[in-house]
Parts: sequence; structure tokens; C-alpha cells
Amino acid sequence: MKKEFVVIGLGRFGGSIVRELVKQGANVMAIDTDSERVDEYARIATQAVVADTTEEETIKSLGLWNFEHVIVAIGEDIQSSILTTLILKELGVPQITVKAQNDYHEKVLLKIGADFVVHPERDMGIRIANNMMSNSVLDYLEISGEHSIMEVKANESIAGQSLIELDVRAKYGLNIVGITRGEEIMISPNATERIQVGDVLLIIGADVDINRFVKKVIQK
Amino acid sequence: MKKEFVVIGLGRFGGSIVRELVKQGANVMAIDTDSERVDEYARIATQAVVADTTEEETIKSLGLWNFEHVIVAIGEDIQSSILTTLILKELGVPQITVKAQNDYHEKVLLKIGADFVVHPERDMGIRIANNMMSNSVLDYLEISGEHSIMEVKANESIAGQSLIELDVRAKYGLNIVGITRGEEIMISPNATERIQVGDVLLIIGADVDINRFVKKVIQK
Ligand SMILES: Nc1ncnc2c1ncn2[C@@H]1O[C@H](COP(=O)(O)OP(=O)(O)OP(=O)(O)O)[C@@H](O)[C@H]1O
Ligand SMILES: Nc1ncnc2c1ncn2[C@@H]1O[C@H](COP(=O)(O)OP(=O)(O)OP(=O)(O)O)[C@@H](O)[C@H]1O
Ligand SMILES: [Ca+2]
Ligand SMILES: [Ca+2]
Ligand SMILES: [Ca+2]
Ligand SMILES: [Ca+2]
Repeated sequence: MKKEFVVIGLGRFGGSIVRELVKQGANVMAIDTDSERVDEYARIATQAVVADTTEEETIKSLGLWNFEHVIVAIGEDIQSSILTTLILKELGVPQITVKAQNDYHEKVLLKIGADFVVHPERDMGIRIANNMMSNSVLDYLEISGEHSIMEVKANESIAGQSLIELDVRAKYGLNIVGITRGEEIMISPNATERIQVGDVLLIIGADVDINRFVKKVIQK
Repeated sequence: MKKEFVVIGLGRFGGSIVRELVKQGANVMAIDTDSERVDEYARIATQAVVADTTEEETIKSLGLWNFEHVIVAIGEDIQSSILTTLILKELGVPQITVKAQNDYHEKVLLKIGADFVVHPERDMGIRIANNMMSNSVLDYLEISGEHSIMEVKANESIAGQSLIELDVRAKYGLNIVGITRGEEIMISPNATERIQVGDVLLIIGADVDINRFVKKVIQK
């Protein structure tokens, strides 16, 4: 059975969710009060509907409680976002994800039963600031509050060294779990593998240790 | 020497960048035309200035070319975003990152010399859609167009099995590089380690293989 989603609010955020879900094979109903935006998604979504989701009768007539997961991507109009969430919750929608504009909005949404609250601009700001702080750390995956896997770009400072010589496990408590070299990806690379300029090292460990390694070895 | 940044536009996106850069120890000049927003960042940023960056004289008087990296986080007003970028480029700012509203805006920004163009709402939409498509895949790091590291949540279907028994390397071409269990993080876990319900497996490999594993083993 295909996964069934509803996305309410077809701005850049909601619209991007519709496109990606459809791309991954889901059924998606796309809703907005703005008929131009709905027209734009008519070819993309499984169903695209002009509707105001703050009207309980509307939500009922669309049968939204039959869907597994509803995403409320109404931004600016906080009141509509809250009211829509409230109605969805009362109708028994199993999973409700809502975009929040600020901390106050988030607090209210969680109180009335939103399952997930997201802050796209804020979260992307944090990701981009992290990328900018380090020319060496290309991207990362947070695996706990204090541990991550980071993509670290190798430069001249470490090129030519083998993994044994670097010995990041003993010196920094880190593990290099992969190396990307152009199109090639080495998973669990050999200890004798020599690093080349431009290699991307996939390093797992405590954030402080990875940052210590990057500062001492790569950016020295 | 501390890293020096300028952030122009203190909405949620630009504001979040200011906070994160400062948190990581950078010097940040925060600029907006709106004095209320500037006041809010006066305590956070190294310097907070009310200014209109579409005025060349303003940018000159602030000495913005002395900074390594300027972020233009003006959203809605596409014309101001473009004009600001143009002036920064002409003044020789080494790195300019700009938030784009749409594809057309991005094209223009790249033509006039922006170094990085970002789409926060769109990119976060893609991330969130990915999270929603799978209850098992919690988060991921793309390491190439076709390979990722994914955080996969273990449920009853695989709990009790050891890594040898699962043998994801032979069966799926995957590697489990870590396991998160509550507060504990096991890096390069032992082959005899038995998976528990709620463990988060850090799996590296081709996206198709990880998805095949998740569908067959976890969501069966
Ligand atoms: N009550 C409602 N019912 C349905 N759709 C609504 C309702 N209120 C607002 N919307 C729609 O939600 C969409 C997103 O609203 P928002 O004000 O955040 O727009 P946006 O800034 O263009 O979005 P983004 O920041 O994602 O680009 C708009 O297209 C708007 O028409
Ligand atoms: N010419 C300019 N010079 C300096 N700041 C500007 C200029 N034009 C706009 N800004 C500021 O840029 C900020 C971001 O603009 P935008 O219209 O994207 O606001 P926003 O939607 O609140 O942002 P976000 O989507 O990040 O929450 C605003 O605070 C605005 O005052
Ligand atoms: Ca918006
Ligand atoms: Ca994570
Ligand atoms: Ca905005
Ligand atoms: Ca990446």
C-alpha cells in the first residue's frame, strides 16, 4: 500500500515536501486557499484542492482523517496554523507535523497535540552556519547531542599519510568509517590507505574530538 | 584569529545564522533596515547595525570588504537581495552566500557572482519529506548522489539478532558503523553485539541497498 499524506500550505516549504513525497512514490493531497498555487501542484500531487482548512466542514468533507500523516505548512498566518492543527487533532489524524514561526507558536502547537513541530528557516540557518564555520567540514549528521558523523575535506596537511600513520583512533578517539574520492566510495577503508588531497573523510566521534582533529591536523 | 562574518537580514534564517556563528565563537556583524530586529541582535552579535545594504555608500562606510564571508539573508525583497549581492561582489568580498526565493532568483545571483546560493525552505522540505516517508529512517547524511549514512531505528523485527546473524554486509552490501542505545554510543560495534528495540543503527552504503534492507528487514 502506498503511503498517504496531506500537505496544507503550498509555499516553498510545503511545496517542496509535496514534490519530494511524490518523487518517493507517496500519494499526496495538496491543499491551499490560493488557487494559483493549487494549479501549480495539480500536475504534481495526486490531488490538489483549493480549500480553507480553518473551516471544520471543509476538512470533514475532504476526509482528511483517512490519511496517515498531515503536514501543516501554513507559515505567516499563525492563527490559521493553530486552528487547522486543532481541527485535525480533534478529527483523530494519527500524525500531524506543523511548521512553527517562533517559540511561542511551537509551544501552543505542542499543547494542542501536534506530533512534530519544525522550524525550517531556523534549522537550515544552523546547518549553514556550521558549514560556514569550517571550510573543512562539508556536512554532518548529528547522532546524539555530542556525537556526529562529519564529512571532512582532506587538504595538503594530511595528504600522503596512511590511516595507520594518522591514527585518529588513539590520538583523537575517532573512527574514519569511509572515504569519498571523486566518484569512488571506500567503506571501512584499509588502514594502509593513503589520503589524497580532496578526499572526503567520513569521521565518527564526539564533536569536540572531531573539531580538535580538524583544527590541529587539517587547519594547522 | 577569530572568523569574521557579516549577516544581512535578520529574519528567522539570518537570525539563526547569527546565533549559531556566535555560539561557535565567530565575530559577527548583524545588519538590518529594521531597527527592532537590530535591537534584538544587539546583545547577541559582536556588532549590530541598522543599515540599508542596497546603498553602496553604506556598505563602504561599514567596511564590509574586510570580512571573509558575507551572508545575504534578505528574502522577500528579491531586488534588494540582488542589488546587495552585486555591490558586495564589486567591493571584492571573498565569499558571498545568498538566500534565494526561487530558481530565477538563484540564476541571477550566480550570474552576478554569488559563491553559494541556498534555499532554506526547499531544502528543509526535502529533509522532512525524507523523514516522513520512513518511520525507520530517522535522519541521514548524503555522502554522494547515491550513497548515504542513515540512522535506522531497530524494532521487534530485528531485535535479539546479533550483527553476525544479520550479516548486512554480505546480504545487502551495507556496513553498520555505529549503534546508539539511549545515551550510549557504540562505534564500530562488535559482531556479537545483539540489537535491542529502539537501538539506532548507523548504516553506510548505497541508498537503494539501505532502502532494500529497511523495507525487507525492518518494515516487513
Ligand atoms: N487556512 C488556510 N488553508 C489553506 N492554506 C492556507 C491557509 N492559510 C494560508 N494558507 C497557505 O499556506 C501557504 C504558506 O503560507 P506562508 O504565509 O508561510 O507562505 P510562504 O511564505 O510563501 O511560505 P514559505 O515560507 O514556505 O515559502 C500559502 O500558500 C497560503 O496561501
Ligand atoms: N536592503 C536591506 N538592507 C538590510 N536589510 C534588509 C534589506 N531588505 C530587507 N532587509 C531585511 O531582511 C530581513 C529578512 O527579510 P525577509 O523578507 O525574508 O523576512 P522574513 O520572512 O522575516 O525572513 P525569514 O524567512 O528568514 O524568517 C528582514 O528583517 C528585512 O528587514
Ligand atoms: Ca515564509
Ligand atoms: Ca540526527
Ligand atoms: Ca520569509
Ligand atoms: Ca552531503
